[in-house]
Parts: sequence; C-alpha cells; structure tokens
Amino acid sequence: MNEIRYNFLKDTWVVVSADRARRPHEYNISIYEESTDLSKCPFEYGNEDKTPPEIFAIRPDGSPPNTPGWKVRVFPNKYPALKIENPSIREGEFIFEKIGGFGAHEVIVETPDHFKHTQDFEDEDFINMFIAFKHRISALYKDLRIKYVHVFKNHGKEAGKSIVHSHSQLIALPIIPKLQKTMILQSKKYFYEKERCYLCDEIKIEKNLKIRTIYENDNFIAYCPYASLFPFEIKIAPKFHSHDFTNISDLQLKDLADVLKFSVRKLNKTLINPSFNLILYTSPPIRKSIIDEEIYKGLDLHFHWHIEILPRITTLAGFELGTDYYINPTPPEDAAKYLMEVI
Amino acid sequence: MNEIRYNFLKDTWVVVSADRARRPHEYNISIYEESTDLSKCPFEYGNEDKTPPEIFAIRPDGSPPNTPGWKVRVFPNKYPALKIENPSIREGEFIFEKIGGFGAHEVIVETPDHFKHTQDFEDEDFINMFIAFKHRISALYKDLRIKYVHVFKNHGKEAGKSIVHSHSQLIALPIIPKLQKTMILQSKKYFYEKERCYLCDEIKIEKNLKIRTIYENDNFIAYCPYASLFPFEIKIAPKFHSHDFTNISDLQLKDLADVLKFSVRKLNKTLINPSFNLILYTSPPIRKSIIDEEIYKGLDLHFHWHIEILPRITTLAGFELGTDYYINPTPPEDAAKYLMEVI
Repeated sequence: MNEIRYNFLKDTWVVVSADRARRPHEYNISIYEESTDLSKCPFEYGNEDKTPPEIFAIRPDGSPPNTPGWKVRVFPNKYPALKIENPSIREGEFIFEKIGGFGAHEVIVETPDHFKHTQDFEDEDFINMFIAFKHRISALYKDLRIKYVHVFKNHGKEAGKSIVHSHSQLIALPIIPKLQKTMILQSKKYFYEKERCYLCDEIKIEKNLKIRTIYENDNFIAYCPYASLFPFEIKIAPKFHSHDFTNISDLQLKDLADVLKFSVRKLNKTLINPSFNLILYTSPPIRKSIIDEEIYKGLDLHFHWHIEILPRITTLAGFELGTDYYINPTPPEDAAKYLMEVI
Repeated sequence: MNEIRYNFLKDTWVVVSADRARRPHEYNISIYEESTDLSKCPFEYGNEDKTPPEIFAIRPDGSPPNTPGWKVRVFPNKYPALKIENPSIREGEFIFEKIGGFGAHEVIVETPDHFKHTQDFEDEDFINMFIAFKHRISALYKDLRIKYVHVFKNHGKEAGKSIVHSHSQLIALPIIPKLQKTMILQSKKYFYEKERCYLCDEIKIEKNLKIRTIYENDNFIAYCPYASLFPFEIKIAPKFHSHDFTNISDLQLKDLADVLKFSVRKLNKTLINPSFNLILYTSPPIRKSIIDEEIYKGLDLHFHWHIEILPRITTLAGFELGTDYYINPTPPEDAAKYLMEVI
C-alpha cells in the first residue's frame, strides 16, 4: 500500500509508492551527451582567459593565477545571477517588493580533466572540491550583507548542467533561502521540545535499523531518508553533531570524501549514469544584532549540516509544482537495497 | 540589472535576469513527440474498457457509460498515487510520521480527439473541461476526510505528461498541501493588515499598469505576474472576488474559456509548442470544527481562486531544489511584450 510520509526537516509530505514500486531499470534515463571539442571548453588548461579571473585555486605546482597547473579553480560565473557590485537595497513598487541584484555567483571547477565526471572522482578530487567550498563560504561571509551561501552541483542534463566539464556552483544571497529557513525553524522546534538535535536522532535510528543505510565510516553515514522526495535520494551527514560545514577538520574531510565517493559510484552503477543534484545544507553564520535574530538563536545546537544527492530521473510535474508535495515511485527501503546489491 | 523579486502569495523570492534577458527563440524547446498508434491509446473511442470505469462524463448523445459518444470522460487513474479504499490514519514510527495512502487520483480526458492538444481547444472544449473539474471537486469534498482537491494538467514531456492524448488529473488529499497553506496564510496576513484581498489588489495594479497584462474580458484577466517563478508564466484570475472556483456561473465559464484559449494559443505561438503545467488554485471547503480551524477562518474573504500556466522551458536545478527560490531568465514585462506581439 502507498503511504504519505512526512519529511520533518523540509516540512512537507511525500506519497511513497509501494503498490507499483519502480525498480532501477524502469526509469527512463537518457544517455549522457559528451562534448569532446576541448578547444571550446572554457574549463580546460590553457583556456583560463575564457573565464573571469580566478578567485581561488589549488595549485600544487606553484603556478601563477589564471594559468594551467591547478587542481581546483574558482571564478565568478561569466553570466552571474547576482553580483557583488549590485545594490542590496530593498524597494517597494506598489504592493510589490524587490531587492537589487546583490550577491555572488561562482563556479568551482573540480578537475582539469574534461572527461572525469563525479563518478570517476578519487578521494583527493572530492577533498579538493570541499576545500574550495570551505574557503569560498568563509570568505564570502566576511561581507555582512551576505546572509547565506548556497553550494550545489548539477550533474547531467536533467539536473540543469549546461557545460559538460565537471563543476559546482555557489550563489551567495542577501536573504536566507526559504528552504533553509524552514529547516532551521523545524530543527529549532524539535530541539525546544526534546532538547536534542533532530538529525542526531534521525542518524541514530538509521544506524540501528540498517534498512535505509548504505554506508558508514568513522565520521559519516549515508542513507536513503525515510521521506525521500526523490527516488534513490541519498543523505550524507556527520555522525557527530556539527552545525557548520566550514568547521570540518582535515581528518573528517577524508571520511566525507570516502562516503561521497562510495555513494556516487553506487548510484551511478545502480541507475546507469543518472543526472543528479548535489546540495550542501549548512548553517548560516551566527551573527548578533540582526533583524532575523530569532532565526540565529541556538542554531549551533539544533542545526546539523548535511549533503543531499537528488537523482533527477523523474519529472517534477503539476502535482509537485502546485502543492510543494512530492510523489516518490521507489520506497527508500527498496532504493537502499538496490544500492547495496550493486557492486 | 538583475533584481530579486518577492512572490507574496508563495512567500518566495525570484532572481529576475534583466542583464541577459532571454528571448523566446533562445530557449531550447524540444519537438513534441506524437504517438499515432490509436489502437494502443486507452483514451480513444472504443477503448473505454482499457481504463477503470468512468465516474463522470459529458455525453450529449445520451450514450451509456463506458462507451463512445462522450465529450469529456473522468475515471480513476489506473495506477493511482492515492486510493479511497486506503486508510487515512496517521501513524508514528520512531520519530517519523505517516498517513495511510488514502485519497483519490482521477484522470479527466477532455476530448475524444487524439490529435487535439490544448492549443487546438475551442471554447467548448475548455468549458467541458471546467464543468468536469467543478463536478469532481464538489463530489469529492462530500467525503470529509478529503481536505484538498488538487487539479492540474501536464502538457508536453517536460511537464511530466506520459500519455500523449490530452488529459488533466486531480489528486484528492487528506491534508491541505504546503503551497496552498502558504498561499492561504499569506492572503490572510494581507487581509488582516489592509482589510482587502491581496489578489484583488494585484489585479487592480496590473489592469492599470498594462505592462504585464496580456488579455482581459468582462470577467477575467490574464497577465505575467510581477514575480513569475517561471519564464512566460501566466496567471488567469477572475476580476471579481471569489474564493471558490466551483461557484463559477455558466456565463463566467464562457469568459474563462475565452481567456484561457487566448493565453494558451499566444504561448504556443511565442515559444513554439512548449511544455507547460496548468494549475488550479482554489479554496479548500470551509468546514467548521476542524483542527485546522485557523486556516479556514475568513477564507472566503481573503482567498481568491486563480489558474497558473507554468511553461517548462528551463530546468529546475540545484539552486531551486536546494533553496525553494527561483531564477527566471525572462522578466515578466518582456514575456508579456513577446506574447502580445505574436499573432
């Protein structure tokens, strides 16, 4: 029988189809289109002048900025959604309200190798990617007008990727996003009732049940969440309580790379190269004397940072767009089983 | 300069790209795939036995149920997300929460003509479609366990349509959806502050400004909303205040068909056959002595029913899924201009 499951953190409900639970091969996954014309790819060695000047890079060979030799390279998006130079003022227009296009939009190229995709990444590639995330998030929060830095990766066409060469993006915003606000308020609600972190409790249950867990190492766990919005959705979270991703240690970073590599490779084998979005949910910086003070209070105690991998093998249609509810055709318990079976 | 605009009813923000505003031909719209094997289509005359038995139909020729002769035909979805026979009880599971798969999932086939798509509909086809919506919504609300009936149409592959023959769907839910709750609470907030309906005010502004309006008749208006989440999004609303779509009169139905026909045809010409979702937002029934009483109070005064057409020519990616905010690459003022220009 189908069930309607509550996703506590996102405060939404998901119809989980058990009646006609879809198996991996029943999804219609399109073939990944490779562009092989490297001369045109702006993310290749030697094409550094085709992007805006770099902001951050990992260059073990000591090469100068905007030249080859980098392992990870970060620069502003050539066509940014938001810009630091734009005003952050709020304005009214009749009953309407707007904010100037202030913010930042950056691209993180995680590898110089055009043909290396997320499922081919080694631990080192993921570690470098996370180091870049950490640096850029911390640097951007020095601007007090930035309220949240959203970091994500679009993998494959159905996930919104437009340039084939592997890369992530970040968008820094002058307002805390709606979903982050919801997650913070839900975590807070749980904490004030139970004096415990919601995600700490969820992780404890998944560790014990072992019906949705797909991998664990010393510091991290990966599982298909109880109320997954997407089929084969994977949540990766630290097993220790931590509200802020940027506090991660070098040792923990190794474990994070390990769990992510395992999860991405399992997913890629199970669904045969699916598109997916990878999303980092972390705490906004805790600042005093801000209008949104209520949001920030106790954030370090009740919020628990984590990563989501959302496979894009179904279409968000009139039901999802018109209700903010979801239909998930593969129960997470089944998804976990398929992911564990594949070698 | 780009702007971040506030969508009041949905309580979310949209980055509106003016810097690189995309024109209609710059969207990559895939060709509509027609399946022409009519014998296999379950929605054809003569194939009535390939669907579950009909619940409602318009049969001007007086033909018996489940035979040809209908103009509109409604039946349960063969693979329903939710079923009336399922339990509606809530259950806890550790910290998790779920509801049995209670609800309804119906299909509304609006025309017996396999090759007639929404852009080919005449007034009569839209009128028949709306009569079916009205009947089914009213009938389903007799079951007090049903809290909301969500009616939508997926047009084209990118909008989630799986069967080519034109049809709409409804999903009846044992809980008011998140988005509807948000819209109700936002309308209420506005009403309690100003003692006016938000959408009545918005319509008045759009009528006067005429920079986003694309069509008007005696009873209805169509415009590209100020904070459109999707490029070329169109909102259709009654110019008179009404909270409940099912209260529509026969005369008003004619005007609604007229404005919808105009809007769909303009959109279809401007973007060259785009996929879109059509969504009906109407009031849940106002019931006394319910837990959610706060939600229902004053609903008839502050909520204003309307229809949205959401073109699916962009991909919802890691930004949208991870924040519940949106990026709209074509400002609604530009969209309205393109829609008005096309003949």
